[in-house]
Amino acid sequence: MSVEAIKAAVERVRPHIRRTPVLRLEHCSDATIPSGTHLKLECLQVSGSFKIRGAVNRVKSLSAHAIAKGLVAASGGNHGLATAYMARQSGVPATIFLPTNASPLKEQKLRKLGAEVRYAGAVWDEAHQAATAHARESGAFYMHPFADDAIVSGQGTIGVEMLEQIPDADLYIIAIGGGGLIAGVSQVVKAMKPKARIVGVEPVGSPTLHACFAAGHVVRLPQVTTRVATMACGRTDESIYEIARRHVDDIVLVSDEAMQRAAELLWFEFGIAADLSGAASLAALMAGAVRPKPGERVAGLVCGAGVDGLSA
Amino acid sequence: MSVEAIKAAVERVRPHIRRTPVLRLEHCSDATIPSGTHLKLECLQVSGSFKIRGAVNRVKSLSAHAIAKGLVAASGGNHGLATAYMARQSGVPATIFLPTNASPLKEQKLRKLGAEVRYAGAVWDEAHQAATAHARESGAFYMHPFADDAIVSGQGTIGVEMLEQIPDADLYIIAIGGGGLIAGVSQVVKAMKPKARIVGVEPVGSPTLHACFAAGHVVRLPQVTTRVATMACGRTDESIYEIARRHVDDIVLVSDEAMQRAAELLWFEFGIAADLSGAASLAALMAGAVRPKPGERVAGLVCGAGVDGLSA
Repeated sequence: MSVEAIKAAVERVRPHIRRTPVLRLEHCSDATIPSGTHLKLECLQVSGSFKIRGAVNRVKSLSAHAIAKGLVAASGGNHGLATAYMARQSGVPATIFLPTNASPLKEQKLRKLGAEVRYAGAVWDEAHQAATAHARESGAFYMHPFADDAIVSGQGTIGVEMLEQIPDADLYIIAIGGGGLIAGVSQVVKAMKPKARIVGVEPVGSPTLHACFAAGHVVRLPQVTTRVATMACGRTDESIYEIARRHVDDIVLVSDEAMQRAAELLWFEFGIAADLSGAASLAALMAGAVRPKPGERVAGLVCGAGVDGLSA
Repeated sequence: MSVEAIKAAVERVRPHIRRTPVLRLEHCSDATIPSGTHLKLECLQVSGSFKIRGAVNRVKSLSAHAIAKGLVAASGGNHGLATAYMARQSGVPATIFLPTNASPLKEQKLRKLGAEVRYAGAVWDEAHQAATAHARESGAFYMHPFADDAIVSGQGTIGVEMLEQIPDADLYIIAIGGGGLIAGVSQVVKAMKPKARIVGVEPVGSPTLHACFAAGHVVRLPQVTTRVATMACGRTDESIYEIARRHVDDIVLVSDEAMQRAAELLWFEFGIAADLSGAASLAALMAGAVRPKPGERVAGLVCGAGVDGLSA
């Protein structure tokens, strides 16, 4: 896994994804958000989130034979949508295992993409067990959401675009579920801009990498209590931890309520329909979990679309 | 009203609005949408639509005295939100008259901005009567949504940005309610790019300018039947008609259902939460009402945010 792999992924994914736009967050009622903050709108991406980048890079690196029996994934929602989209594009079936706290919206979209949806377990880790068992039995290809170099390199293509589209950013705030996104983005950003600060955001109820950083090695969380299904993960992978340890400066925790408030602000003041993980970057600023230094220019990511902020 | 007025408006509105991003509509399942089509996302604008541009330009051209007793508007929703926003920014009260078919979402947002909301009549024209009467009695300033040079010039600033952000577009598809938006945009686009085609989109149930074009003069529609409150208007203004007659190449009609389908596509495939008028540009393409010539590059406008496409 390397910056070269990410650059190769840029070429591989380009024909299949959108270059999502960036919005400068001006005229916001919340004074904790520096006015020069930029958000990259991956909620406008094919399949509704950044996850399509890893999924394209993974599937396009495989033979037709390898995926002939279909694709299977375990997902809080967004990786499942990306997998279902790629299965449809490839003309093979998709089976997506969701934890029971996944958003009904994600299930609805999965069915619309033609995927078979199965619920398995209260958190992602249990869905993952069921999905890998199903893959073994069926011969379908298991798309791991983060413990896969091709997936991480695919997500890293966002970092390349952020460097191009927000050239003067020096603080990157990135949501973490299993850690594939921040592993990809942090590698390429630190390679190109070594002095940039990269801060990861996890839910208080799923401090996956935060706990690893504290322990100095990969640990399994005793429990996962967040209701944000796309950011719930009991244990990350060794390779993800190694990348994060080297390239991520800090990991902060935000409450589910802080993400809810940020999603509502995104909708009410910016017309952006984000899911809770999509609002995590902003929530970290609004809750004071990340405090930009004077003059530091902030780049965040709205990683997925959703209706979580539209209720208020 | 002139291109100079629009350029002056650019300077006047700039400190108060966002430069909304543009999305290239790649990877869409609907083959009627040329893959190079760009949409300018005014749904991400301050107040949730382009209407803030006219409202800023209007209010910032007035003395504090002129607005001291507040602002009043009649609106299908978006102009009301822009008026309410400017009232709050100016520290004066806002009273917004809505027709009964306005979206509940718009009412909810209006109240959140601190506006007083009153329902008056089944269509905009009746709300307009009630609002002008209220303005006379109360001394509040009446913000006309289109029959006002400052409003039209403010909306025209979108044209300036579209010319800069989508430099190779040669077909512009713009939704029409009263006609203020297309009057502003068409003037500046035709001045800078005389060979561009400008096509307006109206609901089948509110062919306001379409009927004027057919008659050769301003007419009042016998009835307005669309459910799209932000595009319902029984009669436009002489000055708007004169501008449209000179600069708008064609006006096409789309059904409410076509706008509904386009809003659903915008949400499902692009993560864009648009109102029905925001989906009108795309609906005109999808329904075949506008057929781009070979090689013609299309620019559309998602003029307002909403939840209309999220039900499916």
